[in-house]
Amino acid sequence: MFKLASSSPNGRRGSLETPHGTLETPFFMPIATKGAVKTLSSQDIEQIGSPIILSNTYHLWLRPGMEVMKEFGGLHKLMDWKGAILTDSGGFQVFSLSGLRKLSENGVEFQSHIDGAKLMLTPELCMQIQRTIGSDIVMVLDVCTELPATKEALEQALELTTRWAKRSKDEFERTKEGSVNPGAKLFGIVQGGTDIELRKRSARELVEIGFDGYAIGGLSVGEPFEEACKVLEALDDILPKDKPRYFMGGAKPHEIVEYVKRGIDMFDCVLPTRNARHGQLYRFVHDDLSKPDFYEAVQITNEKWKNSHEPIGKTGELGRYSMGYLRHLFTVDEMLGQRLATINNVAFYIELMDKIRKYV
Amino acid sequence: MFKLASSSPNGRRGSLETPHGTLETPFFMPIATKGAVKTLSSQDIEQIGSPIILSNTYHLWLRPGMEVMKEFGGLHKLMDWKGAILTDSGGFQVFSLSGLRKLSENGVEFQSHIDGAKLMLTPELCMQIQRTIGSDIVMVLDVCTELPATKEALEQALELTTRWAKRSKDEFERTKEGSVNPGAKLFGIVQGGTDIELRKRSARELVEIGFDGYAIGGLSVGEPFEEACKVLEALDDILPKDKPRYFMGGAKPHEIVEYVKRGIDMFDCVLPTRNARHGQLYRFVHDDLSKPDFYEAVQITNEKWKNSHEPIGKTGELGRYSMGYLRHLFTVDEMLGQRLATINNVAFYIELMDKIRKYV
Repeated sequence: MFKLASSSPNGRRGSLETPHGTLETPFFMPIATKGAVKTLSSQDIEQIGSPIILSNTYHLWLRPGMEVMKEFGGLHKLMDWKGAILTDSGGFQVFSLSGLRKLSENGVEFQSHIDGAKLMLTPELCMQIQRTIGSDIVMVLDVCTELPATKEALEQALELTTRWAKRSKDEFERTKEGSVNPGAKLFGIVQGGTDIELRKRSARELVEIGFDGYAIGGLSVGEPFEEACKVLEALDDILPKDKPRYFMGGAKPHEIVEYVKRGIDMFDCVLPTRNARHGQLYRFVHDDLSKPDFYEAVQITNEKWKNSHEPIGKTGELGRYSMGYLRHLFTVDEMLGQRLATINNVAFYIELMDKIRKYV
Repeated sequence: MFKLASSSPNGRRGSLETPHGTLETPFFMPIATKGAVKTLSSQDIEQIGSPIILSNTYHLWLRPGMEVMKEFGGLHKLMDWKGAILTDSGGFQVFSLSGLRKLSENGVEFQSHIDGAKLMLTPELCMQIQRTIGSDIVMVLDVCTELPATKEALEQALELTTRWAKRSKDEFERTKEGSVNPGAKLFGIVQGGTDIELRKRSARELVEIGFDGYAIGGLSVGEPFEEACKVLEALDDILPKDKPRYFMGGAKPHEIVEYVKRGIDMFDCVLPTRNARHGQLYRFVHDDLSKPDFYEAVQITNEKWKNSHEPIGKTGELGRYSMGYLRHLFTVDEMLGQRLATINNVAFYIELMDKIRKYV
């Protein structure tokens, strides 16, 4: 399913086969947490040219709920999306959004952030939900630890993550037959904070269970960039070369270049879409990815764009509307502004990965 | 410029020539108050098939302001819109949005609703602004009266409206040469509340000055539907048959059918766009416009749509996404929902006018 085509000091080049298309790696996944990339339709994503989106188990479980998801035969059909879908397991959301979280061997009990309902997420249920969603790439349920944490707490979380990973895999295999997307792949999630020894141990234990790909979780949570790099460097020899590696939740454009250098094949990040809604636009400055200033992030509400006739981008609607018009839309709080900025930023990240694939 | 093609008990059929296209009447104008139909781009409006949009003098004057408007050479270029534009004069907005309004013979002094700045709008300035915007159809500055009002107050407002209409026309003609859209048309606005005699007097005085078209202002402000009809019936013989008639700010779909019967050629209304953002979708029920139940307005958040595979509409993205998906988008507050609902409702009003043009 994953073919590593080449490897250089600049990174790995490969392709990942999924039931909804073969994806050239490294790639980036726009975030459609609740079944839509904010302000955009699946048609918009097609036009931008992303072959994959990322959605979220926790959010879709609560709304629209699994009854609706079953009725529609999965998220692909619900949102009429023909490309691939990866779903995050919801572990992170349970830890960050919900109240009264209670962790046990069996799973995590928590209160819904919507109506306060008491719910219990287990590795098994997490697999069942993602099978119902019909994801192409399913993530195991992992234990997220609040940082800073003691080594003991990190170690306990890691051990539970491994046990849950095993249970996830068993349930994933059990639920394959008759599911809407039986060709789905399962990824393990390496935890361990910024403790190199724990990270290595987590990776070894997951590799022993055996997954279709390996994600690095618990980074992009405020740790220094150098710490994240050290974790990736330490994992390089442990993670199998012939499986894809996914850096969860990151990163800034120049950091992506650095993470690709350290062997990463897959990314997701809220920055392009969230920043777009706050009027921050990514643009290329030059073509040399080896220099971190190859891009800029401009604030469209800045006075300097007031009279700018410069088109927002090169193609489609971005080529049609000016920076001056976009600034006006943000100034008067018209949603069209957020939409155009989102198209710009998602297209930027897609083009960035295109450049990176030529660079590695 | 206006050609009346036919007239029947069901209404008038004609065409209105503007510098940006010849419009078949009766027609409806989607509202782009601040230079965008909320959630939509000019490209979206083209795809929906509206030949004209309505924007607002007051709002564009404040933001982006006339300096930017001049820099871009008018609103057509700022928003890259190739169709026609009508601008409301801003009289209504000065009265409804601003604080500390002070009316005098010269104009109306008021405070900006944005930063509290003291501003003065006169009939002359109002024409200069609309010339800078480059509207195809310019509206005179009128005096709006708070209702209920004494006959004396209505009479005074009416008389001032007439004097301002004359000054508007003089300034409109003076500013023609060298303006970005010299072929623009000027419409007078009939006032007088629901007092039939005052309405007739207002119309007569405006006809005497002579305009390219006549708007009926001060309706659709909460008065009973029957009162509005009576006003239109009273004006029918006074307004020249060979000029277009514009009912400002109204109305519901079945009311539009009734107003067309009473000689109206042009409409604008916030209902399709505003209701869309609150999840209310217009849909045709049958083809017989003589019965007011030819349409329905469904609430997409209603439980009944939860599992609906029915497409939102017939073409484009509306034909692609289901009512069930749209309900989900509204439930989780995704902007895409508001956007799809807006496309649906604007397309509904455009199709309604299409049906009406075959019906009259």
